[in-house]
Amino acid sequence: MTMKTATIQQAVVSKDEVVLGKEDIPRFYYNIVPDLPAPLPPPKGDLSIMPKIFPKAILEQEMSMERFIPIPEELRVLYSRMGRPTPLYRARRLEKFLGTPARIYFKREDLSPSGSHKINTALAQAYYISREGYKEVTTETGAGQWGTALSLAGLYFGLHVKVFMVRCSYDQKPYRKYIIRMNKGEVVSSPSKETAVGRAVLARDPSCPGSLGIAISEAIEVAAGDKGTVYALGSVLNHVLLHQTIIGQEAKRQFELIGETPDILIGCVGGGSNFAGFTYPFLGDMLRGKGKVEAIGVEPKEVPTLTKAPYIYDYCDEAEKTPLLKMHSLGHNFMPQAIYSGGLRYHGVAPSISLLKEHGFIKSEAYSQDECFEAARIFSENEGIIPAPETSHAIRSVIVHALDAKKKGEERVIAFNFSGHGLLDMEAYANVLGLK
Amino acid sequence: MTMKTATIQQAVVSKDEVVLGKEDIPRFYYNIVPDLPAPLPPPKGDLSIMPKIFPKAILEQEMSMERFIPIPEELRVLYSRMGRPTPLYRARRLEKFLGTPARIYFKREDLSPSGSHKINTALAQAYYISREGYKEVTTETGAGQWGTALSLAGLYFGLHVKVFMVRCSYDQKPYRKYIIRMNKGEVVSSPSKETAVGRAVLARDPSCPGSLGIAISEAIEVAAGDKGTVYALGSVLNHVLLHQTIIGQEAKRQFELIGETPDILIGCVGGGSNFAGFTYPFLGDMLRGKGKVEAIGVEPKEVPTLTKAPYIYDYCDEAEKTPLLKMHSLGHNFMPQAIYSGGLRYHGVAPSISLLKEHGFIKSEAYSQDECFEAARIFSENEGIIPAPETSHAIRSVIVHALDAKKKGEERVIAFNFSGHGLLDMEAYANVLGLK
Repeated sequence: MTMKTATIQQAVVSKDEVVLGKEDIPRFYYNIVPDLPAPLPPPKGDLSIMPKIFPKAILEQEMSMERFIPIPEELRVLYSRMGRPTPLYRARRLEKFLGTPARIYFKREDLSPSGSHKINTALAQAYYISREGYKEVTTETGAGQWGTALSLAGLYFGLHVKVFMVRCSYDQKPYRKYIIRMNKGEVVSSPSKETAVGRAVLARDPSCPGSLGIAISEAIEVAAGDKGTVYALGSVLNHVLLHQTIIGQEAKRQFELIGETPDILIGCVGGGSNFAGFTYPFLGDMLRGKGKVEAIGVEPKEVPTLTKAPYIYDYCDEAEKTPLLKMHSLGHNFMPQAIYSGGLRYHGVAPSISLLKEHGFIKSEAYSQDECFEAARIFSENEGIIPAPETSHAIRSVIVHALDAKKKGEERVIAFNFSGHGLLDMEAYANVLGLK
Repeated sequence: MTMKTATIQQAVVSKDEVVLGKEDIPRFYYNIVPDLPAPLPPPKGDLSIMPKIFPKAILEQEMSMERFIPIPEELRVLYSRMGRPTPLYRARRLEKFLGTPARIYFKREDLSPSGSHKINTALAQAYYISREGYKEVTTETGAGQWGTALSLAGLYFGLHVKVFMVRCSYDQKPYRKYIIRMNKGEVVSSPSKETAVGRAVLARDPSCPGSLGIAISEAIEVAAGDKGTVYALGSVLNHVLLHQTIIGQEAKRQFELIGETPDILIGCVGGGSNFAGFTYPFLGDMLRGKGKVEAIGVEPKEVPTLTKAPYIYDYCDEAEKTPLLKMHSLGHNFMPQAIYSGGLRYHGVAPSISLLKEHGFIKSEAYSQDECFEAARIFSENEGIIPAPETSHAIRSVIVHALDAKKKGEERVIAFNFSGHGLLDMEAYANVLGLK
């Protein structure tokens, strides 16, 4: 007994590594919608497709105004198996290298078998999909992290998972597609010849590198055309961000345990699920008048959605199959450069994030691929963990703010979400950092 | 307080996932040598090279007759950072798939940033090397797991690491060499033109796929020729096996906590460090008359060292630079097939394992690459974690014994060491399992 108590105390109070017990796996998802500074503009256009492609439970969560939504025990057990609660680390070696008075912390979302935070919502969506009797699910994937996660969740719940993978990632990251297949998933390069959308795009441009918008259209076309098949989205929508809030809830508890209060929270932003999952539990407190924190969403200079795009009603997909959402958007026909951060090549960003940006509760920054890969090199040379190219965007911003703290001689607590590892992106690093 | 106690209790008693607290990171390495059923035959031949290539502390550990050797606190902190103690999982989905009454457990050594158990000794060796003032270390690597681990350890201790990587792995596994370079390590294909040994081999056979024996000779040649440079070995020697015993010590404690007693312990065997690290703490008890366990070392049919090779004095390397060790050996000039399990292509096996095999305390089994990759597929389709090709050998044996238990209707507790993940081996799986 004494030992056991000592054990958890020791684990909890190490300020460089904050490890929680299994009891601390969150019991609720946090829904920020009721706490937003203004009502979330409702989807517009033809909503009739929604019940055709989403299970009821997911649609309910998507529209929910409940602040806390219970997490089924079966899911908590699987979260545990995925390595939750994930540790919060302090990056002392990076601090020393930068010579900054800032204290830098990062949340390890790379430790699951799928290698990123995506598994958090993949398991939840697969759970609800299987409970409603569906056997097939389609989806899109950019870098492949979402496709990997959903195929893994499909294994646990006996679902056949069909993944439309953005062609440039499909070609750049062969290991991802092999893993999806090892997980019994089906993966095709998008644009594909399997859908009317894909065939139309290929007719216009046979060498099209693809986009998340196109891949979403293909996945939705397949799901809408088959009663037994539904669709799963890896980001953007409320229910996806909702599931990811277990990250920020754990982080909050971890900071409480070591008596730290983060001044700056940083996450990379594609559709926004890892950024929202990490920051919303903190932002929710601020929106309810408790505490203050600076939340920064970091995106590629090549895809400056939050930073430069207008706040408009736009489609989520290329072929205009979805309802229109009010969000920052580069336009649903935007064709992003084939950067390696395939997970950040989306034309839009989550409506709730867009609204918070409009109301000044969120800042955004954009950095080039070279700047971010250099940041990844600095991080891994000091901390020994190789980040995903997407994650390297957050790291670049962390370094910028840590050096700013140094310049101003300010103590500052900077925390970021280490959303995924880069082990499957070594080809990209080898090319950009000259490791060949 | 109540919560904290509840937390660790809950963590500890979950029989499907046995998680220890940081206090449970071992404080001692277990040295089996004093407990062996017969004295370990001493090295023969010219021993003068040893002090030229190894730091004093490592040589002392190599020769030590102390049963327990204290682990420096600085190392325990780094072990924690690497994810120790590692969890012990029950493979319930695999049991169900096999329909076996056996209970199958596996120790997760894949969770460190280096992806395998190799980091356990890499950190220890880098610690002692740096403490004695050396700035450079050379080594060999087969699959690349050891080279990755040592380069990572080099980052933490400010050592320049030069890795001679067996050519067939160097070519098959490009990601590994990129990771070593990202860790600021230097990696060259072996046989190389940089050493007399390498040049001689290439003169005989320009297309030589390489072997661990040749890579060791090259690494030793460089270390022996430079006062400021030492050599680090990833397996075979006593001190390496010693460092790995933290795996088995944790596993013992985990089984005690859930009131299970393993009947069969399984690990793959190349040089033998992961097998020994996992089994020696249990075998040590048995050798001291406490309990009984069946320990099975599993190797490739293509490299049947324990299974078929004679127990003789032989060199550890191709060029006969090392002393002779009494071990099972296929001959130090043995040229193994270019199988994907590069970590298991060694011609010899650890002297202590060889002696235990001779005295009947260890069994061995050998399976073909196809049999093992199929086992890896079965495991990952059920448990959702992709093993390293080396690890798949252990899994094949686990499946064989679980099905035997089914046939005989026997309850049986089978545990194996999940020594590393296969995320960097997807090209190999794609080729053998037809995932392309």
